Amino acid sequence: MNEFDLVLPSAVDVREVGMRDGLQLEAPVPLAQKLEMLDALVATGVGRIEVTSFVSPRAVPALADADALAAQLGRWPGVHWSALVANARGAVRAVDAGVADLEYVVSASDSHSVANAGRPTAGALGAVGEVAGLAHGAGGSLEVVVATAWDCPFEGRTPITRTVDVARAAVTAGADALCLGDTIGTTTPLRVLQLLDAVRRACPGVPLGVHFHDTRGSGLANVLTALQSGITQVDSSVGGLGGCPFAPGATGNIATEELVYLLEESGVRTGLDLDALMTAARVTERAVGHELPSSLFRAGGRPVPRGAVTPTPASAPS
Amino acid sequence: MNEFDLVLPSAVDVREVGMRDGLQLEAPVPLAQKLEMLDALVATGVGRIEVTSFVSPRAVPALADADALAAQLGRWPGVHWSALVANARGAVRAVDAGVADLEYVVSASDSHSVANAGRPTAGALGAVGEVAGLAHGAGGSLEVVVATAWDCPFEGRTPITRTVDVARAAVTAGADALCLGDTIGTTTPLRVLQLLDAVRRACPGVPLGVHFHDTRGSGLANVLTALQSGITQVDSSVGGLGGCPFAPGATGNIATEELVYLLEESGVRTGLDLDALMTAARVTERAVGHELPSSLFRAGGRPVPRGAVTPTPASAPS
Repeated sequence: MNEFDLVLPSAVDVREVGMRDGLQLEAPVPLAQKLEMLDALVATGVGRIEVTSFVSPRAVPALADADALAAQLGRWPGVHWSALVANARGAVRAVDAGVADLEYVVSASDSHSVANAGRPTAGALGAVGEVAGLAHGAGGSLEVVVATAWDCPFEGRTPITRTVDVARAAVTAGADALCLGDTIGTTTPLRVLQLLDAVRRACPGVPLGVHFHDTRGSGLANVLTALQSGITQVDSSVGGLGGCPFAPGATGNIATEELVYLLEESGVRTGLDLDALMTAARVTERAVGHELPSSLFRAGGRPVPRGAVTPTPASAPS
Repeated sequence: MNEFDLVLPSAVDVREVGMRDGLQLEAPVPLAQKLEMLDALVATGVGRIEVTSFVSPRAVPALADADALAAQLGRWPGVHWSALVANARGAVRAVDAGVADLEYVVSASDSHSVANAGRPTAGALGAVGEVAGLAHGAGGSLEVVVATAWDCPFEGRTPITRTVDVARAAVTAGADALCLGDTIGTTTPLRVLQLLDAVRRACPGVPLGVHFHDTRGSGLANVLTALQSGITQVDSSVGGLGGCPFAPGATGNIATEELVYLLEESGVRTGLDLDALMTAARVTERAVGHELPSSLFRAGGRPVPRGAVTPTPASAPS
């Protein structure tokens, strides 16, 4: 007999990022429809929602309504809201809008950092302290998302030591938590584990989450490996929304409903309801006006009754 | 520090099932194009190909050319060919056509067995002995594929004891090997492990493979769990072909290129070349005349150079 046992955490803390990572490259969705999306998402039971980015409306027109959206969040008490910021200016906006739990991206590769944030990695790291200070001053926290943590679209593989250096520097500068981003959806289970182990060694005790894209089919296998290694914070997007719908192959985040299905069926509590997620995906699909990539959403959810009829004997007739 | 180590087999034996499970529900592809597909598939380096089914041409018109196709297989020495049969009549045809390594499906649920094979599970099991005898008489072997091993589209969950009973009965009747089929793509890692463990206990020493569909995003996570538990025989289909393209949600087998990408990147040898697989997927897409479901195929293969440029220091400017 083999000795393998599938050891998973008893519960996983899902962060829904569809409102931010999902919508950011879409044509702008009217505020009223975003509120419908949030109604549907909150009804799933999800505890954490990354709700928008406070960034330049020119750079991300789809999220230009961040302040107006944030002003509505009091409708849904009990949800832990967070927002992405790209610099201290964005952090001031977020805090003023009442969102004090912030995510801030630092790309581990210079080329992506320049393309994404207009400055190399060291420059992006240089703002962590100020952004953290703004979050902390408002009673909030700062999570640094290390983008291109495994691979960069321009530079290829990111050395593990590089990602670890960036993570350590972010924590030293004031980050309360870390998240590793598989920005272009290229990583695979062994590399997931290797990087997670290295970052945990470098930043012991710092909360660490994962952000995978399912561009090459490995998304949930990567999650599974991360969970087996002890990770309990996972980003996902309703319907698998994310990436650019106009760029073939730029598929989205792992789909929240696929994540929840896999986890709940494997005995891991998420607090999310699959039927409510299917409803939220339908609302999201209407809002963005195109098909969502999630296979589970297209397949139609849990397909079979959970019970089964009593079969006839399996023995072959003699 | 956590104690988890990702232990995977050093090599996995991939069986390409696109020619059979992939094509069976497509409009018939002309023999010349099937030979082009096989040229491309053999060039990937894959060692095992399930090449067709010897079944009623009325039931599966797409595979009505099984005999003609089998007559061409001598072109590619060194590949281990197999074919699916539905009864002893099909086994005779296969053996006469020179294919002596056979797969035979027994559905663990009666309802699916009746729908698929025209008789309940016990009736399907009743033919195992004769089919095995025909294979063995021709110097071949018989693998019984237990369909609806986890779930049935009509009956819901298949009790583990039921699938185990079917597997044991198949071996008793003469099957040399077993494969567990997630026919409707519903299973998840914990259930994968539980069933594999139960079947291994019931049928110690019998070669055991897995056949997953990626209908709900869990396909490669299921593979990963199976591999961690010691499985080394995995079915997959080029481009993720399979299921019915006209039924929304009836998505295909796990995609061979996604499987190979994940495994090779995780240090598991498959013997397959990813670039050749992308070519084979293109040939397959032309042959079937519609888009293939594989995310990796759409994303365009390995996207980044395997090396990386030397980054500038990650420390923040002081």
